[in-house]
Amino acid sequence: MNVVATVPKDAAETDIAGLMRQIGLRAKAAQRAIMLAAPEAKNAALMAAAAAIREAGPAVLAANALDLADARASGQTAAFIDRLLLTPARIEGIACAVEEIASLPDPVGKVLARIERPNGLVIERVATPLGVIAVIFESRPNVTADAGALCLKSGNAAILRAGSDSLRTSSVLADAMRSGLASAGLPADALQLVPSRDRAAVGAMLAGLDGAVDVVVPRGGKSLVERVQRDARVPVFAHLDGNCHVYVHAGADLGMARAIVLNAKLRRTGVCGSAETLLVDRAVAETHLQPLVSALLDAGCAVRGDDQTRRVDNRVSEAIEADWGTEYLDAIIAVKVVGGLDEAIAHVERYGSHHTDAIVTADSAAARRFLAEVDSAIVLHNASTQFADGGEFGFGGEIGIATGRMHARGPVGVEQLCSYKYRVLGAGQIRP
Amino acid sequence: MNVVATVPKDAAETDIAGLMRQIGLRAKAAQRAIMLAAPEAKNAALMAAAAAIREAGPAVLAANALDLADARASGQTAAFIDRLLLTPARIEGIACAVEEIASLPDPVGKVLARIERPNGLVIERVATPLGVIAVIFESRPNVTADAGALCLKSGNAAILRAGSDSLRTSSVLADAMRSGLASAGLPADALQLVPSRDRAAVGAMLAGLDGAVDVVVPRGGKSLVERVQRDARVPVFAHLDGNCHVYVHAGADLGMARAIVLNAKLRRTGVCGSAETLLVDRAVAETHLQPLVSALLDAGCAVRGDDQTRRVDNRVSEAIEADWGTEYLDAIIAVKVVGGLDEAIAHVERYGSHHTDAIVTADSAAARRFLAEVDSAIVLHNASTQFADGGEFGFGGEIGIATGRMHARGPVGVEQLCSYKYRVLGAGQIRP
Repeated sequence: MNVVATVPKDAAETDIAGLMRQIGLRAKAAQRAIMLAAPEAKNAALMAAAAAIREAGPAVLAANALDLADARASGQTAAFIDRLLLTPARIEGIACAVEEIASLPDPVGKVLARIERPNGLVIERVATPLGVIAVIFESRPNVTADAGALCLKSGNAAILRAGSDSLRTSSVLADAMRSGLASAGLPADALQLVPSRDRAAVGAMLAGLDGAVDVVVPRGGKSLVERVQRDARVPVFAHLDGNCHVYVHAGADLGMARAIVLNAKLRRTGVCGSAETLLVDRAVAETHLQPLVSALLDAGCAVRGDDQTRRVDNRVSEAIEADWGTEYLDAIIAVKVVGGLDEAIAHVERYGSHHTDAIVTADSAAARRFLAEVDSAIVLHNASTQFADGGEFGFGGEIGIATGRMHARGPVGVEQLCSYKYRVLGAGQIRP
Repeated sequence: MNVVATVPKDAAETDIAGLMRQIGLRAKAAQRAIMLAAPEAKNAALMAAAAAIREAGPAVLAANALDLADARASGQTAAFIDRLLLTPARIEGIACAVEEIASLPDPVGKVLARIERPNGLVIERVATPLGVIAVIFESRPNVTADAGALCLKSGNAAILRAGSDSLRTSSVLADAMRSGLASAGLPADALQLVPSRDRAAVGAMLAGLDGAVDVVVPRGGKSLVERVQRDARVPVFAHLDGNCHVYVHAGADLGMARAIVLNAKLRRTGVCGSAETLLVDRAVAETHLQPLVSALLDAGCAVRGDDQTRRVDNRVSEAIEADWGTEYLDAIIAVKVVGGLDEAIAHVERYGSHHTDAIVTADSAAARRFLAEVDSAIVLHNASTQFADGGEFGFGGEIGIATGRMHARGPVGVEQLCSYKYRVLGAGQIRP
């Protein structure tokens, strides 16, 4: 394997500002080549990268063992250790994910709109790469490969900043990605991993590396996202919270509501699309509230409810004001009885995080209003909030889910990692 | 006419921070109503606003006379006075522009993409308003009406900050727009004009008014755009420079090249899409350079050229390095002979501003490469750069032209003033 070192290993870590400036300049220099690369070249690079990841398996595991030892020594939680841990099966999964991204349709050059003007001009809106994407992540080393692959597939250069705890593992993966680029004749610097644990690197990235960075994507916990959203001087694709709601409307079938609520809350509790609050319409509280609440409790979910909810099952504890705004990311749900559609929408708008919210009802007019008036990135009718995922949308991978309204909203896949330009085709037209 | 005052006239101008905070809160409060307004209500508001502008004609002229008197007293240039000046015909033009915007298709709710998933989920990407748009402009009072109308048509609330010199005129126009909103049952605060000349208002808007502002649009000269791009803590739709190029390739027909070059440079020299540099291929310099340069000179354009260009006509002065990066916005053009397509593309990428650039050639392979490799918002083949205009693209109006790659690039019309959400339609699907 022809590994291309991530950066000169003798880079003086103390001059972090200088190091980051160099990384920015190298990204800009490589960006044009990856922007203009033929789909075949990008795909060849990604396939070679996947092969290099497999070939580097033993090196990845060795680096991961060192990272894990440090993490254990510093007393990290079991959940943290699990996020950091790679196994041969997980490494195979990482390689497969890169191959899957290679197999996606190429988003660059796609004609998004075509306008024919009375003067004969043909104006095409054509997808183009965004430029240089900075990804700041924490313990999961697989992000090196899949965020990197999504950036490259969409013609962007990537600057990756791994968590301190996963730097050794991420470095081996980044080297494999870079060797894939080089073997396809593309500049290895289209993917760079910051080779430093210095936290000042993050500040430099958020400042944009002297204009080199076009967008920042934080991948990690709330404190990381908060810092990035607060300090970034460049656009950010992110969501801070996923305080998602399921509203069981008066027109809801109980069986469907139960299946959706259980899935939305409990399929996986740690994902951003998991439901955190259940709203039940007063009109069906008599028939639906107790079965829904008991089903949750029986499935091992703690329930915090308003007065009416507490009366249906004595295992329900009291919900306080803060519960309505809390993303538990755990087997806990807040439950409230609402007076109808208006109150439900008002509750979601007041306490929600504009991420993903669902209504369960057979009443299509009510559904239409909920979908129109809830101002969230994803609104669902009769489906689980856990579908909030780029893969489930058919995007074949996502770099994250965005709740901002600028550029990309919802799952950010390769199409959303693109901008566009206008291509105007004339036959000598001049403007009167 | 039931004029709704822009803001309480007793607002203490000295507490500009408090005033701006109030404006932000009012915009947020009004934003939801305009976001959810039916197309008919928005159109009724705009038609009523146009009628109110006509009815307010004498008041507009009276306010404009005061603004003009102050501008003349403070020694403003004739060009400045002309931008500020309104006449009955110009007022009629403003009213008509608002009516034209009313007649555009409603961009909100448009289904931008539709995905059917194997599990039966139907996922629709649907256009939604961006939120609250802050527009900062200078002397042209018509911006009050047309930028405001574009924001309202796209379901956004607008906060407008007029130039100090045009505040009286803009206030009367803003009141007419607000009366149109009120008469259609929409909140007048969906359009607010900052009632203060205090420059601190601009700083508050650039800071985002405590999260109330979603995007800032500067409409004015380079120093305004520079300040907005430097200081804004929210996204900006703008372009700093329009250093546009026409490249006459080896495969160019001389007649077509001459018509395009003259139009691109001289149709109007003060617009951002006017050409500032002409690149002529060495392969056709012998036949094309002198006719093109002499045609420009004969039409009254000053030409600054490289050595080869100076030799074809003794009226050509010497181009210095700074000329290649200059947006003259005047009857001046820089002319350079280039060795071929690669050198032309490299020149445009090095000195251009990623706004609008054109190639003239009958060679379609060369055109394809130029259009693909020049990383500008608008790239044209065999057409004048002066088509860089939302109206010419069929957008029916634009709030400006953006050269950033995030969200909107090129002319920013009502569709570009929208974000989107995902509407997921299910039949009880849960995620495995």
